[in-house]
Amino acid sequence: IQTVAFIGIGNMGWPMAANLVKAGFEVTVCDARPGHAARFVTEVGGHAAAGPAEAAKGADCVVTIVPTSTQVADVAALIAPVLSKGTLVVDMTSGQPGKTREIAADLAARGVAMVDAPVSGGVPRAKTGDLAIMVGGEDADLDRADPVLRAMGTSIHRCGSIGAGQAMKALNNLVSAGGFLMGIEALLIGQRFGLDAAKMVDVLNASSGMTNSSQKKFKQYVLSRRFDDGFGLELMVKDLGIALEVGRETNTPTPFSALCRELWAASLTALGPGHNHTASAQLSEKMAGEILGGNK
Amino acid sequence: IQTVAFIGIGNMGWPMAANLVKAGFEVTVCDARPGHAARFVTEVGGHAAAGPAEAAKGADCVVTIVPTSTQVADVAALIAPVLSKGTLVVDMTSGQPGKTREIAADLAARGVAMVDAPVSGGVPRAKTGDLAIMVGGEDADLDRADPVLRAMGTSIHRCGSIGAGQAMKALNNLVSAGGFLMGIEALLIGQRFGLDAAKMVDVLNASSGMTNSSQKKFKQYVLSRRFDDGFGLELMVKDLGIALEVGRETNTPTPFSALCRELWAASLTALGPGHNHTASAQLSEKMAGEILGGNK
Amino acid sequence: IQTVAFIGIGNMGWPMAANLVKAGFEVTVCDARPGHAARFVTEVGGHAAAGPAEAAKGADCVVTIVPTSTQVADVAALIAPVLSKGTLVVDMTSGQPGKTREIAADLAARGVAMVDAPVSGGVPRAKTGDLAIMVGGEDADLDRADPVLRAMGTSIHRCGSIGAGQAMKALNNLVSAGGFLMGIEALLIGQRFGLDAAKMVDVLNASSGMTNSSQKKFKQYVLSRRFDDGFGLELMVKDLGIALEVGRETNTPTPFSALCRELWAASLTALGPGHNHTASAQLSEKMAGEILGGNK
Amino acid sequence: IQTVAFIGIGNMGWPMAANLVKAGFEVTVCDARPGHAARFVTEVGGHAAAGPAEAAKGADCVVTIVPTSTQVADVAALIAPVLSKGTLVVDMTSGQPGKTREIAADLAARGVAMVDAPVSGGVPRAKTGDLAIMVGGEDADLDRADPVLRAMGTSIHRCGSIGAGQAMKALNNLVSAGGFLMGIEALLIGQRFGLDAAKMVDVLNASSGMTNSSQKKFKQYVLSRRFDDGFGLELMVKDLGIALEVGRETNTPTPFSALCRELWAASLTALGPGHNHTASAQLSEKMAGEILGGNK
Ligand SMILES: NC(=O)C1=CN([C@@H]2O[C@H](COP(=O)(O)OP(=O)(O)OC[C@H]3O[C@@H](n4cnc5c(N)ncnc54)[C@H](OP(=O)(O)O)[C@@H]3O)[C@@H](O)[C@H]2O)C=CC1
Ligand SMILES: NC(=O)C1=CN([C@@H]2O[C@H](COP(=O)(O)OP(=O)(O)OC[C@H]3O[C@@H](n4cnc5c(N)ncnc54)[C@H](OP(=O)(O)O)[C@@H]3O)[C@@H](O)[C@H]2O)C=CC1
Ligand SMILES: NC(=O)C1=CN([C@@H]2O[C@H](COP(=O)(O)OP(=O)(O)OC[C@H]3O[C@@H](n4cnc5c(N)ncnc54)[C@H](OP(=O)(O)O)[C@@H]3O)[C@@H](O)[C@H]2O)C=CC1
Repeated sequence: IQTVAFIGIGNMGWPMAANLVKAGFEVTVCDARPGHAARFVTEVGGHAAAGPAEAAKGADCVVTIVPTSTQVADVAALIAPVLSKGTLVVDMTSGQPGKTREIAADLAARGVAMVDAPVSGGVPRAKTGDLAIMVGGEDADLDRADPVLRAMGTSIHRCGSIGAGQAMKALNNLVSAGGFLMGIEALLIGQRFGLDAAKMVDVLNASSGMTNSSQKKFKQYVLSRRFDDGFGLELMVKDLGIALEVGRETNTPTPFSALCRELWAASLTALGPGHNHTASAQLSEKMAGEILGGNK
Repeated sequence: IQTVAFIGIGNMGWPMAANLVKAGFEVTVCDARPGHAARFVTEVGGHAAAGPAEAAKGADCVVTIVPTSTQVADVAALIAPVLSKGTLVVDMTSGQPGKTREIAADLAARGVAMVDAPVSGGVPRAKTGDLAIMVGGEDADLDRADPVLRAMGTSIHRCGSIGAGQAMKALNNLVSAGGFLMGIEALLIGQRFGLDAAKMVDVLNASSGMTNSSQKKFKQYVLSRRFDDGFGLELMVKDLGIALEVGRETNTPTPFSALCRELWAASLTALGPGHNHTASAQLSEKMAGEILGGNK
Repeated sequence: IQTVAFIGIGNMGWPMAANLVKAGFEVTVCDARPGHAARFVTEVGGHAAAGPAEAAKGADCVVTIVPTSTQVADVAALIAPVLSKGTLVVDMTSGQPGKTREIAADLAARGVAMVDAPVSGGVPRAKTGDLAIMVGGEDADLDRADPVLRAMGTSIHRCGSIGAGQAMKALNNLVSAGGFLMGIEALLIGQRFGLDAAKMVDVLNASSGMTNSSQKKFKQYVLSRRFDDGFGLELMVKDLGIALEVGRETNTPTPFSALCRELWAASLTALGPGHNHTASAQLSEKMAGEILGGNK
Repeated sequence: IQTVAFIGIGNMGWPMAANLVKAGFEVTVCDARPGHAARFVTEVGGHAAAGPAEAAKGADCVVTIVPTSTQVADVAALIAPVLSKGTLVVDMTSGQPGKTREIAADLAARGVAMVDAPVSGGVPRAKTGDLAIMVGGEDADLDRADPVLRAMGTSIHRCGSIGAGQAMKALNNLVSAGGFLMGIEALLIGQRFGLDAAKMVDVLNASSGMTNSSQKKFKQYVLSRRFDDGFGLELMVKDLGIALEVGRETNTPTPFSALCRELWAASLTALGPGHNHTASAQLSEKMAGEILGGNK
């Protein structure tokens, strides 16, 4: 793979595409925001295309990283006619496995292979090329994608057939969201009892109550009232929706997960758009009648 | 503090009392099981007493570690008449903060101070004297208790006034139980989708879905179908009951925690007594229609 | 039974005691509010006592109807010394079965029988003597209580031994609260879909979705935004707490009920004190992002 | 409307089509089960067609009542080419509003109107022509459908535009399922406390805990252990899935409903296929450790 069409140069896509340029790939970018691709060429390098079809024409590999699978489907419809047999599509969106499989089947009918490769690590690790990447697809296709992915991430987890990377990513975020919510409720009970919330976080971290959230989020973004770790509430709720959708599609009743998604979705509704995902603590606070941290 | 009465030499109490003997305290043990105290003297050392009152008479410090606060109250009623002013009672049971505060108030009326000091780490760390101890009480009393506690544990977390150690311990276990349950449901969804559960655990551990359970329990005790980490399901359900009781007593509505407790309690009912707490995964499996791990 | 001591002449107790006077019983009332008993005598008749003990002295029957079992226990402690063997205590508080059983056991030790007889129907039916009464206790005691109860209510349901009336009442309110909450959520989904909420209520009432709430509450108190059916949110949350307490005491895990209680309790926390129970719809509305009824 | 093509003569469709024949419509039936349409002609009358397209050709109106919207879409694809402008499609399946709207849009592009008209009342009222029918669509189309519908049902509720009848039906079943589950849990708590479950049902029915389930299902199908009211568990779980899907599509977080669906779905998983919907009580019984009714 030498030439890469890169569709979607948003918060994540921009630094990831930049790493591809740096790694020596011949990159043509495009984005829905007018003028954005041209800015990328000026600031970073590579080529700009007016739209996905123009970008994809003649490319060995097309990378997509757009908000949801809905946009991926739009892009796929546009590029399908111009892709030559043997092109590899790498969807790095945190998308829906079911939709992704449909898109992949359509492309396969044209002799175009697709893999999914959603990422973990946020903007900082996108910049340093240090992302964790969960991939799904045929081994041969994943082998082909490997040099491209290694320019953007350091750990690459093969999860199974197409869509498996996205399922894994959504389920990971479900577990993350559940641990966050449970920890917040426990902090609220404890604080109302008279415990110090920051002290509680220390004890959790030294005990069986340790989670990624107790280590990296509670003090930093909740008790500090900063609520700004860079991962949006809408995106988390979208990912929980995907996780539960996988549960429904596989007929897997999971009461605890269902309540988890619903409370996160309720926090988005109650808070409105544009908040960080850690701000969801505020719905729990409202129900518990207690504000975590100093400014009670 | 030189002389210690040690009430309750069960799975945890025996090795903890043994560490006190080793540390040079003059220890008198007693236990509800007939002949148990005598066995301790033969095998470990110290003195045996026929009952709590006999053991406590003249002791500088009385340690209790019995199943629940109900037994602590029984013991307190027996020993109260024989305790001299200035004796220190150290309750290491994973008990109920509310009941503990009542017991402490009764003792305080007789000039006897009490602190609570539940432990974390299980039998292995009880043996090595390596327990984490969460303590509640007056600072002066905790200072006095310190040498005794340091003979049994390495990290001592001061959580607040009497009962605070027990509240902290119960809330820690709530977070632990929530992370376990959420992870199990995610593994079930993933496996039905086609992901490999062991692989999923690896990815969780490398991502934001990491919890104490993903690190120490899922592969070891669930996927292996061993279900034998040494912490009983009844004890976990008891602790969740305490956590939620603290929630009720402090008027802290917490929907996610409430469902968590109820599903754990339901798993105890469905499985019956005598199971390891990790076996609770089996109720989730029944509801999801999927068995985790090899023997599907 | 000829002479009745009536403890607690609040919103419910006043009209109930008045019906006893009307029925020809010799009634002595007392109340925690100073001067209240005297007012009753002036306006209704009977006798006033300075406190429970004075009222109860020599009475054939003592009726209690106070906020919670905590106050019943206080009253019982005051009157126990003055009750003669054979007196009958009739507790009409919506109380806690467990506490009631303790109180009854204490009184039984003095030869005093007790029955519980919580009521349903609110102030209107208290005035008309038309209450539904759920009773618990020994049949012989319930036979004795019968003339007294029939002066206040029309349907009397014998539920079992002491505390059974209170358990039944709390569980009835649990079912009622669950039907209310479920109906509100369904109306919210429907309205956001584009259905008319009032129309929906009509269809529910004609179909399997019919509940007491769809018949008597949704249009009347929620869609109208009046929220004033006369039953307070605090009282509903208290009753749900009792229902779930019975569940815990009997080791009966019930996930759906647990979430129901928690969401009702959360609505009380979020709304604050002094609201009607139907106002709990407002927490559901907040989470759903939709206001039911006209003023959207 | 004179000629009607009737697609799907299963448990519900057969008696409904029979009522159309009786009412004088010229009915052509077809069904996926081989020989079924011929049997209908022999036993009831009308005409048989080999498939949907043959049945629909030249019909004024096409009625569909098949298991789910998936089959409706299949049928629509088959009949679309043969329908003449002005034909009316009446989908009486308990289907998914979203899918139905898509199907209706496709048909509209060919000048074919569609209304949805799911029913309530079960097989008995299908036989007596006494169904309740919830309809969605344009008023003019509903006017046209009216004579056809009145041959099958007595109360017709206009709910809004296309899909609205199905949304209403699914939400009605959600409320019904919630009332059922809540009542079962309350009966379980009560019975473990010592109350008589049948007695409890009587009290609920006389109080605010009354629901359609307490009136028509608990004694008849649960306490009797008959579990055979004629409405399958799979169908209920399907309907709950539709209700929650409407919730998701309209961005309406509803935690209580989500848990309700999940527990019903879990009961289907735990029991396996082929059970009556009232048998879902058995999962609650398993979690509560108690069997309702006589044979404990
Ligand atoms: N932000 C984070 O921390 C993380 C994000 N992710 C996931 O990565 C994905 C992208 O996230 P992020 O970069 O933050 O999102 P952004 O919204 O910042 O970027 C998406 C970009 O794609 C463009 N776009 C949308 N539709 C099209 C289209 N049809 N053709 C071409 N371009 C299009 C958007 O333009 P416009 O704005 O005009 O719509 C935008 O510039 C999401 O799935 C997210 O869940 C994963 C891990 C972490
Ligand atoms: N096991 C573990 O991994 C952990 C346990 N804990 C907590 O520590 C506490 C003790 O647990 P564990 O040691 O496992 O329990 P055990 O049941 O093994 O030991 C309790 C001992 O106390 C005795 N006892 C009970 N009542 C009395 C009484 N009134 N007077 C004197 N002795 C009495 C019991 O005797 P008998 O058996 O005859 O009743 C038994 O020997 C519990 O609160 C538990 O939750 C905390 C962390 C980890
Ligand atoms: N049963 C009840 O009490 C109630 C049911 N409903 C709803 O009514 C609908 C029908 O239920 P019910 O009658 O019980 O279900 P049945 O399964 O008894 O009947 C459905 C019939 O449709 C046939 N069918 C399936 N696909 C096609 C197709 N593509 N073309 C032609 N025929 C087809 C089936 O054949 P085959 O068996 O070969 O697949 C079957 O004979 C469902 O949506 C249900 O939820 C609503 C209210 C009450």
